[in-house]
Amino acid sequence: MEKNRLEAFSDGVLAIIITIMVLELKVPHGESLSALLPLWPVAISYVLSFIYVGIYWNNHHHMMHASKSVNGAILWSNLHLLFWLSLLPFTTGWMGENHFGRWPTMLYGLNLLLCAVAYNLLQTSLIRHHGPDSLLARAIGRDLKGKASPVLYLLGIVTAGLDYPCGGMIFFVGVALLWLVPDRRMERAMAGHQRSTP
Amino acid sequence: MEKNRLEAFSDGVLAIIITIMVLELKVPHGESLSALLPLWPVAISYVLSFIYVGIYWNNHHHMMHASKSVNGAILWSNLHLLFWLSLLPFTTGWMGENHFGRWPTMLYGLNLLLCAVAYNLLQTSLIRHHGPDSLLARAIGRDLKGKASPVLYLLGIVTAGLDYPCGGMIFFVGVALLWLVPDRRMERAMAGHQRSTP
Amino acid sequence: MEKNRLEAFSDGVLAIIITIMVLELKVPHGESLSALLPLWPVAISYVLSFIYVGIYWNNHHHMMHASKSVNGAILWSNLHLLFWLSLLPFTTGWMGENHFGRWPTMLYGLNLLLCAVAYNLLQTSLIRHHGPDSLLARAIGRDLKGKASPVLYLLGIVTAGLDYPCGGMIFFVGVALLWLVPDRRMERAMAGHQRSTP
Amino acid sequence: MEKNRLEAFSDGVLAIIITIMVLELKVPHGESLSALLPLWPVAISYVLSFIYVGIYWNNHHHMMHASKSVNGAILWSNLHLLFWLSLLPFTTGWMGENHFGRWPTMLYGLNLLLCAVAYNLLQTSLIRHHGPDSLLARAIGRDLKGKASPVLYLLGIVTAGLDYPCGGMIFFVGVALLWLVPDRRMERAMAGHQRSTP
Repeated sequence: MEKNRLEAFSDGVLAIIITIMVLELKVPHGESLSALLPLWPVAISYVLSFIYVGIYWNNHHHMMHASKSVNGAILWSNLHLLFWLSLLPFTTGWMGENHFGRWPTMLYGLNLLLCAVAYNLLQTSLIRHHGPDSLLARAIGRDLKGKASPVLYLLGIVTAGLDYPCGGMIFFVGVALLWLVPDRRMERAMAGHQRSTP
Repeated sequence: MEKNRLEAFSDGVLAIIITIMVLELKVPHGESLSALLPLWPVAISYVLSFIYVGIYWNNHHHMMHASKSVNGAILWSNLHLLFWLSLLPFTTGWMGENHFGRWPTMLYGLNLLLCAVAYNLLQTSLIRHHGPDSLLARAIGRDLKGKASPVLYLLGIVTAGLDYPCGGMIFFVGVALLWLVPDRRMERAMAGHQRSTP
Repeated sequence: MEKNRLEAFSDGVLAIIITIMVLELKVPHGESLSALLPLWPVAISYVLSFIYVGIYWNNHHHMMHASKSVNGAILWSNLHLLFWLSLLPFTTGWMGENHFGRWPTMLYGLNLLLCAVAYNLLQTSLIRHHGPDSLLARAIGRDLKGKASPVLYLLGIVTAGLDYPCGGMIFFVGVALLWLVPDRRMERAMAGHQRSTP
Repeated sequence: MEKNRLEAFSDGVLAIIITIMVLELKVPHGESLSALLPLWPVAISYVLSFIYVGIYWNNHHHMMHASKSVNGAILWSNLHLLFWLSLLPFTTGWMGENHFGRWPTMLYGLNLLLCAVAYNLLQTSLIRHHGPDSLLARAIGRDLKGKASPVLYLLGIVTAGLDYPCGGMIFFVGVALLWLVPDRRMERAMAGHQRSTP
């Protein structure tokens, strides 16, 4: 089964998720600068979630690029990932409109955690399909970041639950920074692959 | 006529439908966990409809993959299917916000029924275009699931109409599970095809 | 310049327009069937506009398929067409929510007229780019439908303006039916082309 | 790394941004023409922003067409550009609903400025990736328009800040006109390239 329609559908859903979040930034009624200020928690939440969806798109792009084909299990793992990502506009909005309250921040972290779990499941089903010696498996390697992220999300959720939502946010921002640092694994593995297959 | 633009347009519409449904999950005003709880019927409806759109995308993907080309009748059959699917966010929202009331649940089932009828019409026009001996026709085969689904939807609508909306829901969830079970027909037919044409 | 990205962008915009219109179908608050009934004018308007966007997508698909390349003027003619189509959710909603009142029906007709004019401009810039002897120019031919539609829209607008909005709607529905009848021009021209270039 | 998925994702996001803006045109409640008139500032803002997104899509299309491949820095520069563009529906709505007030007009200009800066960053990272002698670098050339636009936006923001928002708008409309004038650089450079590589 070819992978390009899975890519096209995922691109579509991710493009909509990333753009729909901005609808939570409701146009304020006054025209003074002070009418704009109360929007800062929603705006900050939007920036963070935009970066997260960008990271997922980026990693998804790399992972599918290193893949050759897909099967039924992969299609459903991918839809499962898109499901949790599709809830981000909701949890982002709830957290932003409640100024990073305890429960909203915990739910946001839970959403990030479930996205990470779903991404790992998709990765696992892709590796199972391509085999442990595949380019994909070698490109992913030990996947330290992918294993550390869920732990850090959990710590963030617990911190927020102890009524330190800002402490929780530090974890959620931290994981984003961790992934923003360019991840050369795939690019290197594929460049090496291309060098060794002239 | 080539099929790829029909696929691209369908992917776009399905991606938007699946993501727009989450807009019915309106961000609650309170920040306590109790503010979130009344959303459970909308959330459950969203999950079910997400799975249904996922099933349609999945089956559409397989069916178009086994097709070689399209004609005018197929383009319109496809738009007809997209029309009924585009109403899912509306019927899902009505059912969820009214806690699976009698009429909303019946309308939701009717919407599912009309999607299934439209899908069967699209399938029929594709088979007519490709011929009864085509790879597509053999891949679809007797299509027991496709024939059983409308009957099960009808039973669900009648059950909901007799004021047992939860009984109706069991049918609607049941059909989704029926389709979630991997359908290897197409994959097998195409694999067999590739094996026999080395 | 290649045409495929223009097609992809147009598919995206048309997919969003066709799906966003359903957001005007606001979920009613009651759960009885009578809560649903007041939505019929919005629902009918939605069906008509869905068909119109479907017709435009269909014709756009055929026209671009018969084209080989695009230039800057064509890109902007295409954006111009998408602009008027993007207003359809607004004019459809205004007409539906006001039960086919005089001004809303006139504005809806004006929107359809401007879409038709924009489509003709796009067609003209495509023919100018490909030359009068091109496959595209021959496929379009005398374009009777394309010339009749604006006249019929104008008659519909005038009829609605004379306070017979339902009379106006007959014109708008009529033009849609005119285009729904399969238009074999392009398919025939291209089939003939393929036959004559073995 | 291939460029086509970056193009597909950008097309998706731009298509959604351009279409979501029309949702700020809220369907008026009355059915008289006078109910429509108060919408003119929102409508004008929509037209201007539609043209701006169209210009960005057009230029993005040309720039990516002249590019051969992308890397991680380019993916993130592109997401950075899409972020600022995604805020256009918000700033457009705020400016339109407040009849081109001082602060909303300044914020709109700031948004345009940040989009221009992000576009220049993307262009720079593309040139760095392709080298100063690449087709892309030669096609972009001295980029007078790209250098003048931020200065003109700044002048517009200052003018609006001195409580002449309409004066500011003249700058913002002027820059759009500057870009609407067909930019033959890329087309010429690529045509020349094709001529010199028979």
